[in-house]
Amino acid sequence: MTWLELPANHPFGIATLPYGIFSTAAEPQPRVGVRIGDLVLDAAAAAVSARCEYAVPALSGPTLNPLLAAGPSAWASTRQWLTSVLTDPAYREAVEPHLVPLAEVTMHLPLEVADYVDFYASANHAMNVGKIFRPDSPALPVNWKHLPIGYHGRAGTVVVSGTDVVRPSGQRKGPADPAPVYGPSIRLDIEAELGFLVGGATTMGDRVCVDEATEHIFGVVILNDWSARDIQAWEYVPLGPFLGKSFATSISAWVTPLAAFDAARVPLPGQDDPEPLPYLQSGSGVGAFGLDVHLSVEVNGTVVTRPEYATMYWSPAQMLAHMTVNGASLRTGDLYGSGTISGPEKGTRGSFLELSWGGTEPFTLADGTTRSYLEDGDVVTMTAWAPGPDGAVIGLGEVTGRIVPTR
Amino acid sequence: MTWLELPANHPFGIATLPYGIFSTAAEPQPRVGVRIGDLVLDAAAAAVSARCEYAVPALSGPTLNPLLAAGPSAWASTRQWLTSVLTDPAYREAVEPHLVPLAEVTMHLPLEVADYVDFYASANHAMNVGKIFRPDSPALPVNWKHLPIGYHGRAGTVVVSGTDVVRPSGQRKGPADPAPVYGPSIRLDIEAELGFLVGGATTMGDRVCVDEATEHIFGVVILNDWSARDIQAWEYVPLGPFLGKSFATSISAWVTPLAAFDAARVPLPGQDDPEPLPYLQSGSGVGAFGLDVHLSVEVNGTVVTRPEYATMYWSPAQMLAHMTVNGASLRTGDLYGSGTISGPEKGTRGSFLELSWGGTEPFTLADGTTRSYLEDGDVVTMTAWAPGPDGAVIGLGEVTGRIVPTR
Repeated sequence: MTWLELPANHPFGIATLPYGIFSTAAEPQPRVGVRIGDLVLDAAAAAVSARCEYAVPALSGPTLNPLLAAGPSAWASTRQWLTSVLTDPAYREAVEPHLVPLAEVTMHLPLEVADYVDFYASANHAMNVGKIFRPDSPALPVNWKHLPIGYHGRAGTVVVSGTDVVRPSGQRKGPADPAPVYGPSIRLDIEAELGFLVGGATTMGDRVCVDEATEHIFGVVILNDWSARDIQAWEYVPLGPFLGKSFATSISAWVTPLAAFDAARVPLPGQDDPEPLPYLQSGSGVGAFGLDVHLSVEVNGTVVTRPEYATMYWSPAQMLAHMTVNGASLRTGDLYGSGTISGPEKGTRGSFLELSWGGTEPFTLADGTTRSYLEDGDVVTMTAWAPGPDGAVIGLGEVTGRIVPTR
Repeated sequence: MTWLELPANHPFGIATLPYGIFSTAAEPQPRVGVRIGDLVLDAAAAAVSARCEYAVPALSGPTLNPLLAAGPSAWASTRQWLTSVLTDPAYREAVEPHLVPLAEVTMHLPLEVADYVDFYASANHAMNVGKIFRPDSPALPVNWKHLPIGYHGRAGTVVVSGTDVVRPSGQRKGPADPAPVYGPSIRLDIEAELGFLVGGATTMGDRVCVDEATEHIFGVVILNDWSARDIQAWEYVPLGPFLGKSFATSISAWVTPLAAFDAARVPLPGQDDPEPLPYLQSGSGVGAFGLDVHLSVEVNGTVVTRPEYATMYWSPAQMLAHMTVNGASLRTGDLYGSGTISGPEKGTRGSFLELSWGGTEPFTLADGTTRSYLEDGDVVTMTAWAPGPDGAVIGLGEVTGRIVPTR
């Protein structure tokens, strides 16, 4: 138990301890913070006060990249140290002055993103998109169960929760249009995903096996892969999504360490028909896990869907192994998204495209208005939690964003 | 004329002046160099000696990113200053000690790549690929003449000329195979391209018009987009190329400023059927240019193709305008490739895929061996030049790489 007064099931209790980058009006330089309850610990300053100077280098700097670069043993020792100073009352006097109320902080993008890759790991999502976009083809692409399909996205437009999203413009062409037209997107959408932060560079030509993946997965964010479906539909054949996705990707401000999910590891859904190639299999079992993370998506305060991460087909470790099997190197700061999280039921679909079935079944918000796609002014907020040890709740915070009109 | 003794048509004469990052055994820290003849000018050191300290900040650092960030007026003044000190004999005494023989330098990756985007701007290439990969569909995708198709690639595996390329492994599945198989790629290919280095960040939600693009295009490199065709063919539907491309992209060590191509600007091939949407058109004419760059590709010393950049359909400025039309921001260090440069004749096709027509028409090297795709040990070298002012030749240097076996 922590010496802070927290309810036992607080989502930011001692079992969570996520990292973020914060600043305050009094000290405007962005720095590493650790959330505990509704407070933020100024991590490097606390390390100095608590005479744990060895922890300082990885916690210094305006992003989490030094900590990501420090690697798995440093991640474990830092988490151990934080747990100690927040539970052992002997540290209270040294640490307490470095706790800042959450209401007083501004959160920043937690990492400098190196490469950003987005996967497509939900079978339900892939089947739904297939039925809507390609009604004359098999719902699931023929390669889908053989490999985690993915593509590179734009790292430079990954933004922190709270950042406004300008409605993108571009070309669209409906099947009946004689020629494409230009204008603001009229099918602006969300995708509810988890994102994984990578630490520890590898060498070109080497690969990371499924069972080595957790040595490179530092932590998890909630990720909203904003998508302009009309732009995407017209552009994506044959080289994939580009401008339909590249205008913005939002991530939560808090990065939950993978270590916080020990109690949330769940078996993967079956992968026996077909069985994946050996390089996508776990030998020791270390890499063979899904995550029991429960998401919720609100639009202007109305919950519109509750995706379940445990339904995902491909695992975080398989995605990382696939991404590097060709010898592509990893860099500290790489970020990869799971792809939209959609379960089999309508109430667990992770995009408006699926919730409104391509716009044919609008859904209703609490204010009585309906939506097939996003309107200017709409605020989308995704939250998530996972089970922790001994009945604890692991909160992943939120990723929120408001749509503002095209400039 | 320069005070150095150079033949009038030397490809690295006073009209070229490309930038790169070099080091020497005596001074191993990577720094900005400017090539003149077969010498490299240590740019920041020369600026100090020549009492041009104002030029130093943009020329300091281990990459060209500070120069890229400095923007177009700094690019112009730096080039003007370099031209002055290398032509006015009054500077000779100050500058000459900072010239290093090319044979003594090691070249490094010239920039820290932010986002890397690859386009598909050659109509001949797109048609050839369409005929080979999708024989039952129209050769040119229906959207191709409406927009410059592009996708994001892996920035972290962009490497400098001379870097060995490890043969990638991955999944492939021929039409007759009952299931995919795993192994080293057996259809390893090249793509001869030009790459464009971007300087000057923009704000999310804003866009860069065709006629503003040259304010952000710093310079040009030769780019080899190594491609594993078997991996690519199996993975790329529906989200585009991923592991088939992400293992390595090589660029020339020398970055030729866009200003060096003033005499090489040529009209674009017609874009009147259909006419592009207004956002892809030049109003003032400033952005409406192609480049008269002549490439040559050697495999183990045998020239196998001579692509002509002037045949490209979409222009560098149009690609940049398209990339940002959705409000995607630019960062200093962004790099975008043109896509394979293929002309209408067989001897100008920019990939083995096209030269061997999907492997059905192997070509012969000088040693009597034939190739459809690359073998281990093969060395691919691309060179390029363009016409300069007053009969000068603008050399773009080379991008070279050797295939080494899968680890």
